[in-house]
Amino acid sequence: MSSSTDKAARRQKFEGVYKIIRDDLVGYLKAETMPKEALEWYQQNLDHNVPGGKLNRGISVVDTVEILKGSSLNDEEYHKAAVLGWCVELLQAYFLVADDMMDQSITRRGQPCWYRVPGVGSIAINDAFMLEAAIYHLLKKYFRPEPYYVDLIEHFHESTFQTELGQLIDLLTAPEDHVDLSKFSLEKYHLIVIYKTAFYSFYLPVALAMRMAMTDPKAYETALSVLIPLGKYFQVQDDFLDCFGLPEHIGKIGTDILDNKCSWNINTALKVATPEQRQILDDNYGKKDSTCEARIKAVYHESPISLPERFEVYEKESYELITGLIASVDESTGVKKEVFLSFLHKVYKRDK
Amino acid sequence: MSSSTDKAARRQKFEGVYKIIRDDLVGYLKAETMPKEALEWYQQNLDHNVPGGKLNRGISVVDTVEILKGSSLNDEEYHKAAVLGWCVELLQAYFLVADDMMDQSITRRGQPCWYRVPGVGSIAINDAFMLEAAIYHLLKKYFRPEPYYVDLIEHFHESTFQTELGQLIDLLTAPEDHVDLSKFSLEKYHLIVIYKTAFYSFYLPVALAMRMAMTDPKAYETALSVLIPLGKYFQVQDDFLDCFGLPEHIGKIGTDILDNKCSWNINTALKVATPEQRQILDDNYGKKDSTCEARIKAVYHESPISLPERFEVYEKESYELITGLIASVDESTGVKKEVFLSFLHKVYKRDK
Repeated sequence: MSSSTDKAARRQKFEGVYKIIRDDLVGYLKAETMPKEALEWYQQNLDHNVPGGKLNRGISVVDTVEILKGSSLNDEEYHKAAVLGWCVELLQAYFLVADDMMDQSITRRGQPCWYRVPGVGSIAINDAFMLEAAIYHLLKKYFRPEPYYVDLIEHFHESTFQTELGQLIDLLTAPEDHVDLSKFSLEKYHLIVIYKTAFYSFYLPVALAMRMAMTDPKAYETALSVLIPLGKYFQVQDDFLDCFGLPEHIGKIGTDILDNKCSWNINTALKVATPEQRQILDDNYGKKDSTCEARIKAVYHESPISLPERFEVYEKESYELITGLIASVDESTGVKKEVFLSFLHKVYKRDK
Repeated sequence: MSSSTDKAARRQKFEGVYKIIRDDLVGYLKAETMPKEALEWYQQNLDHNVPGGKLNRGISVVDTVEILKGSSLNDEEYHKAAVLGWCVELLQAYFLVADDMMDQSITRRGQPCWYRVPGVGSIAINDAFMLEAAIYHLLKKYFRPEPYYVDLIEHFHESTFQTELGQLIDLLTAPEDHVDLSKFSLEKYHLIVIYKTAFYSFYLPVALAMRMAMTDPKAYETALSVLIPLGKYFQVQDDFLDCFGLPEHIGKIGTDILDNKCSWNINTALKVATPEQRQILDDNYGKKDSTCEARIKAVYHESPISLPERFEVYEKESYELITGLIASVDESTGVKKEVFLSFLHKVYKRDK
């Protein structure tokens, strides 16, 4: 089986578990004697917001459990790993429904944002809450007897709080309606990325898989030390592709410049811009105007900013840093280098 | 000491613990190297939303632990009970910040709703999330070594999900901008009240206190069977006072009729209205118009609706039902009738 067919088959198998957990959740509402319209609403909330993404985070839980076990999973193991994967996707859905409201976004994954679906509006706030509540309902249903049940819960609680901290500093640093580039810096950017993305997207899936595989407690620090830099590298790529990627590859038209986003591009540019370039950045960034956006893109290409060249250097350095970190992983604690290499190979030099 | 001085002293002592948990939470952000503006923002979020209410839910945790112990609490016991109480208040704050956004409310506890504070706006969604996250941070900090730690977490998870279910059916039944009284019924009303209010306001504080006092698992069903009817009675009073209470007593001017609220008043009226009265209710309920509101209030007084008389009957029947339930409580499981009597006496015949 080729690698891409294999990937599609893995995705399909993982998606099969979605139907089960969705029925678990809607079934809970039914058991609590909720009216039919509430069951239908919750099912639509779940169907619209949970399964339509790339599912990288969720599938990576399953992949990691498999690597740590060292052989393929039996049905019960697969199911449990996939439930944890869907819990990460539920967490992501909870954040995205809310983020889209806070950012006043229009579309997400090629469909209208949930709060923009007719009849939803601000009910989406409570709907986001109910996506989060689903996580703990499923953990209780499938993991309560396990010795690591409380650890799973704590991983979700901690990653949730960290992501919310990242969202807070992002909102305070880069409000969509008030541009002030003096608030930006690469240091602030890195803090936002680590908290808003890296913990829940990279560390959380691996930490959950390690709990299932009963890995030595010492290995969690190791995992963190590799996965946080990896998450940072992933987000820098994401930011770079938003501006320099091909829309037909990334599946959307980037709007980071128009939206005053605190991205790697603008922070790198600010650090090295000449006074004249800085003036252009200050005058044109975050304006809802395609001419301003084009001016920013032009400056991004100019020396000494030259973002494409700087990104190439950054990518090479990151790759070396991360492969170095992976090489020094102590496998005697039960964690395996392959876990991190598998992540790195999914991320390195991606164009979408 | 008179009962009201005693009550004020209890409140003051409980408020003293707020400062500690607020410093714990802001200290966590500091330890995570968050920028100063994020620390200040979180502190304002906490100070604006958590401590300014009646604190009945929070203080009832402390009162219940004391009753179950049968003697006054030592400093450590008091502190732990009060932390649980503040966790209930944090949960309430989380719901209220979000509810006010969904209801587009203007003021809460005599001050602007958080999302209406200049500069806050939709950031309030993430702020609500961070009030919820605080609960689990505090539980971990103060209760992790306890054998009942996971039970505390599960009580919060379950009550949270139930409250969100109640909020969902309320939003679907009584959207502020679309009046359709055919969706209302006393049965639907009771379901909303039990889920949206009774679980987290009445059952949760007692269940947490029972965990701390290591009460027999069998007693939780008993507690539920008394506290859900008590919570229902409390909410009916609340609804009645919104329309018939004195603003100088209840501290606000009721707006349930204007806001198309699915309240005990309207549902009771709908059940017994003559066709002519029903027409008046359909034509005037939920309109943002004080003349319409006055027409509804007039019908509420008319026979056979006569809400004040019906409320008096309801109150008497509820009191008898609940005292009957309390009388049949089996104290051998470690729970005490006094827990429930203390709640009932706080609620019965209140005028605010």
